[in-house]
Amino acid sequence: MKLNKIIVATLAIGLTGAALGQVVGKAEDQIRWRQSAYHTMAWNMARIKANVEGTYNKDQVVEAANVVQAIANSKMGALFQPGTDKGKGWKETRVKPEFFKPESKDELGKLAGAYNKEANEMAKVAATGNAAAVKAQFGKLGESCKACHDKFRKDE
Amino acid sequence: MKLNKIIVATLAIGLTGAALGQVVGKAEDQIRWRQSAYHTMAWNMARIKANVEGTYNKDQVVEAANVVQAIANSKMGALFQPGTDKGKGWKETRVKPEFFKPESKDELGKLAGAYNKEANEMAKVAATGNAAAVKAQFGKLGESCKACHDKFRKDE
Repeated sequence: MKLNKIIVATLAIGLTGAALGQVVGKAEDQIRWRQSAYHTMAWNMARIKANVEGTYNKDQVVEAANVVQAIANSKMGALFQPGTDKGKGWKETRVKPEFFKPESKDELGKLAGAYNKEANEMAKVAATGNAAAVKAQFGKLGESCKACHDKFRKDE
Repeated sequence: MKLNKIIVATLAIGLTGAALGQVVGKAEDQIRWRQSAYHTMAWNMARIKANVEGTYNKDQVVEAANVVQAIANSKMGALFQPGTDKGKGWKETRVKPEFFKPESKDELGKLAGAYNKEANEMAKVAATGNAAAVKAQFGKLGESCKACHDKFRKDE
């Protein structure tokens, strides 16, 4: 990791704190890291889903919700630098060019804020062990993911 | 995600709680998910490294340490089912066949336990904002990762 690759993150996605000094790497690093983070969340969302649809295990749901929460709060916006609308990490990025347009900034901020809120709430609800509440919150969290996918992610 | 893919996790890696009902998916899902989780940790380890070697930002280190901690506690052992010593997720798996041998179980348990301990400690130390302590703990955590890589991961 070359430290001269550290640049200032300028996107509003999840950037509630200081963004200076973020390690963002080369374009292919950014794309691979974000694809990895989304897939790590997908694994953990699948774990929560299996619990609310099958036998409920509080510990598993807490573990999975904590991963989703930590990633949701990790300022992934830094991995969407200009120029990464095209390129390959593990595979071709699916982000739409609209994501990077200045006029999308407000909407992205809202979508990211909603997803952060629901991910933080998911971890809180998971800690209660209330399966019905977890199921309801899992639905809300999934909707907040989908809202951004529908708008800013290309279909496969 | 087919729920009939849910099988019992039998490995000792990180399985400090109940392992029944884990979503482990097909072999290629397991390999892709674990590669994703390791890469997500690698991004966050790089972030901590940049902070301890450059300008220190407490929030960033806390965010990154929380991701590593959450993944370290997510029972990734469930993603190393028998039969996943070979196969492709994002790329060919680098796990060595020795990982899956019964005689490796004790050593794997020790390595996983050490890594869990250092990851939990990393999050605690990050919360203090003490850069020197973070640097020291980052070294210990990195050693705990390397100990397992040296023994059970093939070179690229």
